[in-house]
Amino acid sequence: MDDAELVEQVSRGDRRALARLLSHIEDGREERVRALVAALHPVSGSAHLVGLTGAPGVGKSSLAAALVAHWRAQGHSVAVLAIDPTSPFTGGALLGDRVRLERHVLDDGVFVRSMATRGHLGGLSWAAPPALVALDAAGFDIVVVETVGVGQAEVEVAAVADTTIVGLAPGMGDAVQAAKAGILEVADVLVVNKADRPGADRALRDLADLQEPGIGTAARQGLTLPDGVEDWDPPVRATVATATGEASGVGALAQTVAAHRDWLARSGLARHRARARAALQLRELAQAAVRGRLGAMAGGTLLDDLAAQVADRVLDPYTAADRLLAALEIER
Amino acid sequence: MDDAELVEQVSRGDRRALARLLSHIEDGREERVRALVAALHPVSGSAHLVGLTGAPGVGKSSLAAALVAHWRAQGHSVAVLAIDPTSPFTGGALLGDRVRLERHVLDDGVFVRSMATRGHLGGLSWAAPPALVALDAAGFDIVVVETVGVGQAEVEVAAVADTTIVGLAPGMGDAVQAAKAGILEVADVLVVNKADRPGADRALRDLADLQEPGIGTAARQGLTLPDGVEDWDPPVRATVATATGEASGVGALAQTVAAHRDWLARSGLARHRARARAALQLRELAQAAVRGRLGAMAGGTLLDDLAAQVADRVLDPYTAADRLLAALEIER
Repeated sequence: MDDAELVEQVSRGDRRALARLLSHIEDGREERVRALVAALHPVSGSAHLVGLTGAPGVGKSSLAAALVAHWRAQGHSVAVLAIDPTSPFTGGALLGDRVRLERHVLDDGVFVRSMATRGHLGGLSWAAPPALVALDAAGFDIVVVETVGVGQAEVEVAAVADTTIVGLAPGMGDAVQAAKAGILEVADVLVVNKADRPGADRALRDLADLQEPGIGTAARQGLTLPDGVEDWDPPVRATVATATGEASGVGALAQTVAAHRDWLARSGLARHRARARAALQLRELAQAAVRGRLGAMAGGTLLDDLAAQVADRVLDPYTAADRLLAALEIER
Repeated sequence: MDDAELVEQVSRGDRRALARLLSHIEDGREERVRALVAALHPVSGSAHLVGLTGAPGVGKSSLAAALVAHWRAQGHSVAVLAIDPTSPFTGGALLGDRVRLERHVLDDGVFVRSMATRGHLGGLSWAAPPALVALDAAGFDIVVVETVGVGQAEVEVAAVADTTIVGLAPGMGDAVQAAKAGILEVADVLVVNKADRPGADRALRDLADLQEPGIGTAARQGLTLPDGVEDWDPPVRATVATATGEASGVGALAQTVAAHRDWLARSGLARHRARARAALQLRELAQAAVRGRLGAMAGGTLLDDLAAQVADRVLDPYTAADRLLAALEIER
């Protein structure tokens, strides 16, 4: 079967074709990925992309599973792209947490895919954006991208999602640390999961205190809202979603996510966000192309020679970098 | 005073000149930073660069302060470059933790500088590598770069340091999570700080269990060691270093850091690491140059037009990125 046929099957909702196509994306042969995205991109754009992130131990996978169950009960189809940090040493993703999503394994309205970050620590895989295009093009109502929130991850998730949920848990470092890490700037919805644990009230209170009333999403970006549309102040929700399957507060969380989507449409930010996202993606793809060409130089004579000269203090790093850049081939 | 004179004063050990020069670096006028680094680089290379990282709440600043006090008592001069994540919203670095390092404020053998990451979450500032060259050139025996370890940060610190210390604390997420985040791959020395707290024994045991005997630093990189030199298995140390000033285990930690430096020299890895570090830095500088040029396009007509076409599904992202890249000016 050629790729055009595969894309056709994916856009008709064929789950096995989708799984195969995602494997092609993960294989990462650049020309093929480009061709697949070029074919899928025009039929994408209707899914609600939900980012779900937070530090290790927040219970993101359990929360994702609870949200999926809720959305399924409401009749929505849902895809989950779970990004696993890979240890470059052990070489494998830790998939244990994922297993409980498998209870939907026979449900065609749910699709779960794990993707390793391959050498990145946290953050998204380079393959995540093309995979999201594929899941979107496959016709899911909601596409969740779940990633462990360490460092850049929240920002990267927010950069691809319509609605970003940042999860916290009681006692995992206080809210000041959360502010320090900048997560309040990227969250559309904040969730304190494991809210039945000691310290939950305090975490909820601290988060509420940190918010600055009247400085919502649009104000922060200097955007003017249409008449009658109020700004969005990222709400704080409390949930209990654990590996054993109990869940509370998940319905309210799902409602908040839906309200945010509605607000994005009414405020005009949906379109603004889509364009900003595209601009960011273009710059990243261009940078990735340069990185790829620089990476291809690793171990090569030019880079080795320049590095040795810098290490031996014969050449300063900026001059050496200029020489490296000059040797790059940029097509124009 | 011109920059040549400033560099001259810095390399003679003038602390006020050093502070002024670091401000010039932070100002970030590219041509000036290049010229300063070109002048400082030839006289750098003798300091022991120690990276200190770990999640928020580990007590890194207290540990840094305790190490500085220990090294000073041994007669070493020490500089600390403390990288603070900046909230893009509040615009300021949270400097509270830094204050207690100020007890060395009248000691010319200690120099402490905070640097904001400016919009990055965690990780190093772009200004950190040139600042480290300056601190090294200023003649400090030991230069510590301290950063909150979220995501890329550990990797970035390890990429600039001779010896990387990764700090953990009891009960802050277990050792499996640490492994998941890949920190064991970048740490030369592991420290469980706050080792008087409940859960410390377990954290120490878990970390020890995770290590694979016989797979040390050299083996992991596929390097052959000279006869009679054993491989380095990152040791696990326990410390108590708190804001109130009590400290234990810090002497043993400092000894381990010194032993690692000695091993780097004996094994030949010091030179190998310096070259690998230079190669990485060159690639990063080249990428940064491209990123700068792409950044200069933000808000410009070409990027806006291309982003709108991608958001409207008129153009696929890869084709648009090609057009963006073709518009870059790469000197050759």
